[in-house]
Amino acid sequence: MTRRFGFSIHATDGRARTGAIETPRGEIRTPAFMPVGTAATVKAMLPESVRATGADILLGNTYHLMLRPTAERIARLGGLHRFMNWDRPILTDSGGFQVMSLAELRKLTEEGVTFRSHVDGARHSLTPERSMEIQRLLGSDIVMCFDECPALPADRARIEQSMRLSMRWAARSREAFGDRPGHALFGIMQGGLERDLREESAESLKAIGFDGYAVGGLAVGEGQEAMFGVLDYAPGFLPQDKPRYLMGVGKPDDIVGAVQRGIDMFDCVLPSRSGRTGQALTRMGAVNIKNARHADDPRPLDPECSCPACTRYSRAYLHHVFKAGEIISSMLLTWHNLHYYQELMQGLRDAIAAGRLADFAASFHARRAEGDLPPV
Amino acid sequence: MTRRFGFSIHATDGRARTGAIETPRGEIRTPAFMPVGTAATVKAMLPESVRATGADILLGNTYHLMLRPTAERIARLGGLHRFMNWDRPILTDSGGFQVMSLAELRKLTEEGVTFRSHVDGARHSLTPERSMEIQRLLGSDIVMCFDECPALPADRARIEQSMRLSMRWAARSREAFGDRPGHALFGIMQGGLERDLREESAESLKAIGFDGYAVGGLAVGEGQEAMFGVLDYAPGFLPQDKPRYLMGVGKPDDIVGAVQRGIDMFDCVLPSRSGRTGQALTRMGAVNIKNARHADDPRPLDPECSCPACTRYSRAYLHHVFKAGEIISSMLLTWHNLHYYQELMQGLRDAIAAGRLADFAASFHARRAEGDLPPV
Repeated sequence: MTRRFGFSIHATDGRARTGAIETPRGEIRTPAFMPVGTAATVKAMLPESVRATGADILLGNTYHLMLRPTAERIARLGGLHRFMNWDRPILTDSGGFQVMSLAELRKLTEEGVTFRSHVDGARHSLTPERSMEIQRLLGSDIVMCFDECPALPADRARIEQSMRLSMRWAARSREAFGDRPGHALFGIMQGGLERDLREESAESLKAIGFDGYAVGGLAVGEGQEAMFGVLDYAPGFLPQDKPRYLMGVGKPDDIVGAVQRGIDMFDCVLPSRSGRTGQALTRMGAVNIKNARHADDPRPLDPECSCPACTRYSRAYLHHVFKAGEIISSMLLTWHNLHYYQELMQGLRDAIAAGRLADFAASFHARRAEGDLPPV
Repeated sequence: MTRRFGFSIHATDGRARTGAIETPRGEIRTPAFMPVGTAATVKAMLPESVRATGADILLGNTYHLMLRPTAERIARLGGLHRFMNWDRPILTDSGGFQVMSLAELRKLTEEGVTFRSHVDGARHSLTPERSMEIQRLLGSDIVMCFDECPALPADRARIEQSMRLSMRWAARSREAFGDRPGHALFGIMQGGLERDLREESAESLKAIGFDGYAVGGLAVGEGQEAMFGVLDYAPGFLPQDKPRYLMGVGKPDDIVGAVQRGIDMFDCVLPSRSGRTGQALTRMGAVNIKNARHADDPRPLDPECSCPACTRYSRAYLHHVFKAGEIISSMLLTWHNLHYYQELMQGLRDAIAAGRLADFAASFHARRAEGDLPPV
C-alpha cells in the first residue's frame, strides 16, 4: 500500500474518467460516492455495514465534530478513524459551508467566521488556520480548504466578492496545511453560475496548487439544469490529472450527469436521510415505503438488489416497521440506499472502463421512466 | 432435527437444571433468555445480530402484532418467522398481560377482554380461543395460554378470583389449541404471593396437561425478595420433566436467583430498553454511558466482553453517540446488553453442568460488589 497520496486515471469515456485515488489508508475507486458520517457515524449504520455496501471512503463534518465531541478530544482518543472504527480514508469538509447553514449569530470577516454553536450556544471561531488544525487533529486523509459559499440565487457582486475571499482563504489554508505526506489538501472552486468567475477561481487554485479540486457552490438551490450548465465547462478549467469533487451532490441522476461531465467524487446525505424518512431509492425511482399499498406486498423493495433489506424482507415488513417507528426501518432502508448508490457508482466505473457510458446513462434514465415511480 | 417438541434435562445442581428444548426450528439451550421482539423486531437489532449474541429463541407480543400489522396479514405473508427474518423458535405471549397494561377501555368478562387499541383506538376482543387463533396465525412455536394477571399488591380475594378465571381460560386455551405436532402450548401458573393458590393453580394446570409451565404474575411490583419467596416453592409444584418459564424476568440477579430455584426460561425488555436509554449492563453492574466521566475514557465498556461495542469502541465514543442522539448508540448498547445476557446464561448452563452453580453465583455477586457500580 502506498505511503503517498496519488491519483491515476485508468480509462476515459468522453469527459468521464475512471481510476483510483491512492492513500496510505487504502484505494478509493473513482467515480466515488462518499457516505456522510456527520457526527462520527453514518446514521443508523455500523461502519462494517457501510463498508459492505462498497464504500471506500467516508465524509466527516468538521463543524459538527469541533462542537461535539471536539477535535481535541478525538485527537486524544487516537483520531477520528479509531474513534469511529473506520480504518479506511476519511475526507473532512472545512466547516465553512455548515457554519453558514447551521450556526447562529454568524459574523464573517476577512479573518474568518465567528458563530454560536447550535448545540450549546457557545461562541466559536473558524478561520482557514483553525480549520486546518481541526482537520489535522481529526486525522483526516483528505482535507478541504476553508471557504465561504453563498446560497444561490445571489447577485454577481456577492458571488465575486465571496469567491475572491475564498481564494485568499485557499492560499491561507495551503500555507497552514504545510507538507503532510500521505494526506491531501483539496482546493474548492467557487464562482456561482458565472463562467468567468469559475475560470478565475480555477486559475487562482491552480496557481496555489492542490492535490485535488472541488467544485463548490453548487446544489445550493440553483436546480439541476443550472448545475449541469456550470459542469459543462467548469471541470475543464481544472487539472486533468487531479481528482475533481462535486460537493454535496446528489440525487442519482445528478451523479450520472456529473460523471458524464468529468466529476470523480461525490458526497450527499440523501441516501441516509431518505432511509430514515421511509424513502427507498431504487433503479426504478423512489419508493415511499410509508404508502399503504405496500402493507400486504410480499415482494422485495427491488428484486435485483442484493442488499439485506431486499434479500431478506418484504415491502410489507419494511412498511410495518416504518409505521411502527422501529429503528430497524432506518437501519434497513439506509443500508439499501447506500448499497444502491455504491452499485450505481460501480456501474458508472464499469461503463466508463468499457467505453459505454452513454448506453449506461440511457438505460439508467429508461429504467426510471419505465418504473413509473416519482423521480428522487 | 426433531419434528416434535421435547425437553431433556442434561444435568442438575440443587434445584437448578440445564438441558435443551427441542423444536422443529432448532434447539433452545436452557436456562434460556429470550430477547423480546415486540413488534416483529428486537429493537435496534438485525435478527442475525440477535442470533450472534447467542439467542436460540425470540419472544413476540400477540397484543402488539394483532393490532399492527395484524395476525391475518402476517399469516398471508408466510408467518412471523418469515416476516421478521428469524427462522429459529419464537414464543408468543397470549396478549393477556399487555391488554391489561397497555390497552384502553378494557372490559373483562368470563368470555374474555374487550378493549380499544392504543395504536388507533379501534375496538378489539381477546378470548382464549382468539388468542390461540392469533398465535397459530403467527406461526408461534411456543404458544402461551390466555390468562389474566392482576398487578401486585392485590387482595387475596382478587388474586384467587383471577387465578381461577385464568385456570378456566387455560382449559379453553388447551381445547382451542388442539393437537399441533411440533408446536407447544404452555400453561401459566397464577396465585400471586399465596402459596396455597399457587399450588391449586399448578394442580389445575397439570390436570389439563401442557408442554411447559410458566410462573406468571411475578415481577409485577412485588420486589425481588417476595418473588424469590414464591420461587422457593412454586417450581416444585410443577412437573420436573417440563420446561419452567418465569415470565417478564428480569434483572441479571433476578435471573441468577431464579435459575437457582429451578427456572429454565426467561424474557425481559430490560437489556434492549436499557440499551436505548444509555444504560449498559455489565458483570460489574450498570454503566450509565450518559455520565460525563466517560467523555474522555478510551477504555471499552467491559474489557472482558467480546461484543462489537466492547471490542471496537471506547466508552468515550459510546458517550458521544448517545449524547448526539445517534441511532448507533441504541444499536451498540442493545447488542452489548443482549450479549451480556446470553453470556450470563451460558455461564449458568456451564456452571450447572459442572456442578458449581453456587460458586458461579457467589462470583457473580462478588464481581458486582467490587465493581462499585449501582446494581441494575
